[in-house]
Amino acid sequence: MQLNRHIVLAERPSGMVEKTTTRLEERPVPEPGPGEALVAVRYLSIDPTIRTWMDDAPGYLPPIGLGETVRGAGVGEVVASNSDRYAPGDLVVGLTGWQDYVVADEGLASMQVIPPGIDPTMALSVLGVTGMTAYFGMIDVGRVAEGDTVVVSGAAGATGSVAGQIARIKGAATVVGIAGSPEKCAWIVEELGFDAAVNYKTDDVAATLRSSCSKGIDLYYDNVGGPILEACLGQLAMRGRVVLCGAISVYNDKVRPPGPRNIFNLIIKRGRMEGFLVLDYLDRFLEAQIEMVGWLAEGRVKHAEHVVDGLEHAPDALNLLFTGGNTGKVIVKL
Amino acid sequence: MQLNRHIVLAERPSGMVEKTTTRLEERPVPEPGPGEALVAVRYLSIDPTIRTWMDDAPGYLPPIGLGETVRGAGVGEVVASNSDRYAPGDLVVGLTGWQDYVVADEGLASMQVIPPGIDPTMALSVLGVTGMTAYFGMIDVGRVAEGDTVVVSGAAGATGSVAGQIARIKGAATVVGIAGSPEKCAWIVEELGFDAAVNYKTDDVAATLRSSCSKGIDLYYDNVGGPILEACLGQLAMRGRVVLCGAISVYNDKVRPPGPRNIFNLIIKRGRMEGFLVLDYLDRFLEAQIEMVGWLAEGRVKHAEHVVDGLEHAPDALNLLFTGGNTGKVIVKL
Repeated sequence: MQLNRHIVLAERPSGMVEKTTTRLEERPVPEPGPGEALVAVRYLSIDPTIRTWMDDAPGYLPPIGLGETVRGAGVGEVVASNSDRYAPGDLVVGLTGWQDYVVADEGLASMQVIPPGIDPTMALSVLGVTGMTAYFGMIDVGRVAEGDTVVVSGAAGATGSVAGQIARIKGAATVVGIAGSPEKCAWIVEELGFDAAVNYKTDDVAATLRSSCSKGIDLYYDNVGGPILEACLGQLAMRGRVVLCGAISVYNDKVRPPGPRNIFNLIIKRGRMEGFLVLDYLDRFLEAQIEMVGWLAEGRVKHAEHVVDGLEHAPDALNLLFTGGNTGKVIVKL
Repeated sequence: MQLNRHIVLAERPSGMVEKTTTRLEERPVPEPGPGEALVAVRYLSIDPTIRTWMDDAPGYLPPIGLGETVRGAGVGEVVASNSDRYAPGDLVVGLTGWQDYVVADEGLASMQVIPPGIDPTMALSVLGVTGMTAYFGMIDVGRVAEGDTVVVSGAAGATGSVAGQIARIKGAATVVGIAGSPEKCAWIVEELGFDAAVNYKTDDVAATLRSSCSKGIDLYYDNVGGPILEACLGQLAMRGRVVLCGAISVYNDKVRPPGPRNIFNLIIKRGRMEGFLVLDYLDRFLEAQIEMVGWLAEGRVKHAEHVVDGLEHAPDALNLLFTGGNTGKVIVKL
C-alpha cells in the first residue's frame, strides 16, 4: 500500500522552526471521490507567510492547527481523476500543503491547471504568488510612477527581486535594494539592474539611504518591517508611499517588537502606508501573468530559484528565509 | 512711546513648556511701510503644532529660532494701513505670532481679511485651521462613508470634536470619541451626539473598543498617536483607514517613543494609514467654510472655545493642550 507523507505542525514554534516543531506522518494515499482528482505534489512554494500561520494569532487565514498538515502552496501532477476539470498528466497549482498527495476538488476549484508551456516552478515564483505580490504591490498599491525613487527591502528574495525590476520597467528613476550579503547586493545590481544596494547587516541603512536617496524615497516596498521600515520612513519624500507587503524581520518574535518611532513623519511628509494581500487580486492574476510573461521573454525581468530536495527538508527550507540563506524563490522539490 | 510685547523662545523645552522656555520682550511698535498695514493682535490660536515648532527637529516648517517670537496663528484688527488691501477696522487672520502687533504685508498676503458677520474666534477654530483640519482629514483623507464605524481621539479637542460631528453628518453609523475626563466624555455624547465615549485615563481602551466597535473600526482619526493608535490599529476593520492628524501624546517627549507593535495588522486588514497637513488644502478652505457655516446654522456642528486672558498667559495656554485642561479650542485673548 502506497503511503502519503505529511508534515504536520507538532508544536507552535517560538522563533525559528525547530526539529520538534513539525513531524512527519504517513497516512494512506487518499482516494479521489466523484468530481475529485488525486494530485501528486511535485514542488512546494516556501513563503514567509507560512511561518505566521504557525502562530496561534489572528491573521488573514486561521492558524494551522496542531496536528494539521502544514499549509502552503505547491504544484502537483494529476495522477487520477474523476473530474472533467482535471486530466491525468495536468500540472496544477494551489494550496497543496506539505504532503506527497492531495485531492483536488473541482467544486471548490482548489487547484488551477497550469497552461502548457509554463514552467511549473515559475507558476509558484515569478508567475505565481510571489511575482503577483510584487506586481500588484508595486503597481496597484504603490502606484509606482515615472521618475520615482524606489527602495525595496528583501530585495534578493522572490518578491523583492521582482518588485524592484517592475519599478524599473515602470520608469522609476532610482531603484535601491536592501539585502543581507555582498553576493545578494552584487546580484541585484549586476544581474537585475538595481541602481544601488544596501547590505543591512554591515551598512548603516539610514545613512546610506540619505545619500543614495538624497531627494527622498517616493515609494518604499517593505518586505521586512522592523528597523529597516523605520529607516525608510525617516527618508520618505513628500507624499511618499510605503507598501506593507510583509514583515519577515518580526515573524519569529514571540512578542511583536515595538514599531517605528517616526510614524509622525507620515504627517510631515503627507505620506501613506498601506498593507495588502495578493489574495485580493486573484481575479486579475491573468492580466498580470500575461504582462510578466512578456517581460520575462524580453529579459526585462529575471528571477532566481533556490531549490531544496525532499519533502522532509521543507521545515529547513522555511528557515532559509529567516537566515537569509536563499537568493530568489525557495522551492522544495518532491 | 507704545511698546509691542513679544513672547520669544528663550530655550528649547524638554517636555512641558516651563517658565524659562519663553520670555516676554518689549520692542517698539513697528511702522508699516508702503503696502503694509499695522495689525493689533486680538486673539491667538493655541495649537499642539506650536509645541513641535519649539523642538530643534525637522518638520513641515522650520523650528522657531531661539530669541524669535513664538510662531502661531491669530486674529487682529487693522489699526493703520498703507495698503488698499487692508482698511482700518478690518479683522484679519494669519500667522500673527505671540505679540501685540504685527505688520501685514499685502505682497505676501500674510493676513486674510475676515468677512463681516464671521465671529473672529471662529475664524481660528471651527471656521479656521482646526475646523478645516477636521473637515479635510475626515472627508478627503479618511473618505468617511455611509455606515462607517468611526473612532476619533482627542475627541473633546478643537479638531476631534468637529471631526466626529462631520463623520455623523456624512452618515457614519457609529461615532466613538476618546477623551480624558468624565466631563469631556459626557460633553461629546450628550452635546455633540457621539454614540459613545472612552475615557482613556480610566478605561481599557482596547477592550472598550472591542465592544463598542465590535465589527471593527472603518476609520480612525488620530490626534494623539502612542498607545491609543496601537489600540485602534488592533481593532481595525477590513480595509480600515487611519488618518494621522497629530500625535499630541508624544510631542512633549524628548525622544520619540516606539511606535505601535501591530503595524502588521495593516497587512492582515489591507489597511491604510495616511498623514496630512491642512496647509495643503488652503485653496479649498472657502468651499469647506461655506459648508461648515451651514452646519453651524443648522445646529449640526457645535463647538466650544476655552479662552485664556492675556498674551503673557499664552505659554500656560499651550500647556493646557497637554494636561487636557481644555474642552474645545484654546484661544488667548489679548
